[in-house]
Amino acid sequence: MRESDSNDVPDIEDLHRACMRIRDWVRETPVFNDPHLDASLDCTLYSKCENLQRTGSFKFRGASNAICSLRENGSEGDVATHSSGNHGAALALAASLDGRKAHVVMPENSVPMKIEAVRRYGGIVHFCSATQESREEELEKRVKEGKIPVHPYDNANIIAGQGTASMELLQQIPGLELIITPLGGGGLVSGTAIAAGARGIPVYGIEPEGAADTVASLQQDARVESWQADTIADGLRAVVGVRNFAVIRAQVKQVLTTSDQEICRAMSLFWQETRMTIEPSSATVIAAIRKYPEIFRGKKIGAIITGGNLDPASWAAMTEGYSA
Amino acid sequence: MRESDSNDVPDIEDLHRACMRIRDWVRETPVFNDPHLDASLDCTLYSKCENLQRTGSFKFRGASNAICSLRENGSEGDVATHSSGNHGAALALAASLDGRKAHVVMPENSVPMKIEAVRRYGGIVHFCSATQESREEELEKRVKEGKIPVHPYDNANIIAGQGTASMELLQQIPGLELIITPLGGGGLVSGTAIAAGARGIPVYGIEPEGAADTVASLQQDARVESWQADTIADGLRAVVGVRNFAVIRAQVKQVLTTSDQEICRAMSLFWQETRMTIEPSSATVIAAIRKYPEIFRGKKIGAIITGGNLDPASWAAMTEGYSA
Repeated sequence: MRESDSNDVPDIEDLHRACMRIRDWVRETPVFNDPHLDASLDCTLYSKCENLQRTGSFKFRGASNAICSLRENGSEGDVATHSSGNHGAALALAASLDGRKAHVVMPENSVPMKIEAVRRYGGIVHFCSATQESREEELEKRVKEGKIPVHPYDNANIIAGQGTASMELLQQIPGLELIITPLGGGGLVSGTAIAAGARGIPVYGIEPEGAADTVASLQQDARVESWQADTIADGLRAVVGVRNFAVIRAQVKQVLTTSDQEICRAMSLFWQETRMTIEPSSATVIAAIRKYPEIFRGKKIGAIITGGNLDPASWAAMTEGYSA
Repeated sequence: MRESDSNDVPDIEDLHRACMRIRDWVRETPVFNDPHLDASLDCTLYSKCENLQRTGSFKFRGASNAICSLRENGSEGDVATHSSGNHGAALALAASLDGRKAHVVMPENSVPMKIEAVRRYGGIVHFCSATQESREEELEKRVKEGKIPVHPYDNANIIAGQGTASMELLQQIPGLELIITPLGGGGLVSGTAIAAGARGIPVYGIEPEGAADTVASLQQDARVESWQADTIADGLRAVVGVRNFAVIRAQVKQVLTTSDQEICRAMSLFWQETRMTIEPSSATVIAAIRKYPEIFRGKKIGAIITGGNLDPASWAAMTEGYSA
């Protein structure tokens, strides 16, 4: 399924088309600024709240664009993907809106409520081991059965769909000096770089220290193909994709890392000021703004808050002892 | 402090003025519809998310209107109020934005994070017993010291400010058939009734069974002045105010009750479909839509989600065992 043509990436026109294509399915999510949070972070922060997107994450944008594109092309039948959860739930809902089934390969160590969410939206779950190889192998089986593959990030339609979050953000908030997003497989950061690049606005991607394969790939100037992820940020454990790495290398200003401790502290801070419980993956951006004042101090920043799919008991356990 | 002139209530022009007065301080909160939640509740629900308002509740609207009105009138000095927490935090922030201090009388059994929030926004906390009489007595002391009283609900500026949530909602979502709000002291429901009444839209208020003083007041056609509240919905334990009761009696279509069990189940359901952790007070409206299908089935409903000031660990404890 992994097509390795790194030239097959969307451009800004593809993002405009994606915005039109998915407008009836996705929510225009709100953007919040909070002066107390700004004081804590020493910047002016506009949080694009994709945690309030349908299915609880930005992934519904890419999934909607992929499914609507299949429909436009007259491509019928069920779809298959691999996912730590959010893309799976998003694809399950998008597929069901178009009368299809989604088969979702999920690592055994996926967050239980994310497994349940895939099923609740009508998806069929297939478990695999918690490695990139196992994910790809198990997905390959579904493709051989005739399912249409929709890769969670290494796919031009997914990248264009994820980029629509920043297309919206840039319309909602004029004058942003930079945009910052979490970085896992790279679907969001690459779509964001295409959206923001068209306006000359730099984009930063944030990886957890325990899943910093993109930083390693940039250092060796070649994509790392395998990585044993070890981080609380379950949504960011995947290895960066081929197309995604090509865009990141060319268009992302810098990739930075944050530790799990910094992530937990950022979850606590964000809740204190906004009353929203966000996933550890989302909190990487807040953690990074705190950690790298030499980059972010005093700036007018757009941050994509990627998802809120974490049960409150787990949130409480993760943040215990990390007062803001 | 309790002025007992029930004729001193705002009209729709006061609400329009309040909207203009507070527009630079309050957030225009988002309104969400979710088809899965609609399917569970058998209606079309538009949730006006005041849990995402500054200070985490709609109370910042009334507090802002009260403080801005003082400023307009040239009335200088610190303010005082009593509050289970959300009005206290809201008044503390509004006062600080105008360079004032807020003195907040709080029942000893207030939610700890609400006490902390009052202090974080610069308010000064004074504890009292958990009765209406004790709240009023302790507040009277502050007023004798020269503080300007800003009653949490029995105050025309507060009522007008709270009504701005529905003024916004009615602009955001055309064609609502009814609006439903939680009911504690009655500031929100009375402001809502004034806003919606101007368009001929009926308003329902929801009380917890353990704080159903307004239902009792309506039954005996006279305001109950004391009530020993016993409910998980800490924001709704106050006794309905004089002005508030006058508006409710004249303009609110019906007051309904929900049990604490129904409230906890509704908190769980709302989170499952929206990923927002809302206070038990907020969840009364979701619980009531479930409980009274003969009233709400098939309707296009606006619901004020009043606040999100509940720590996730407490949320998890309250909803444990209440799957949606």
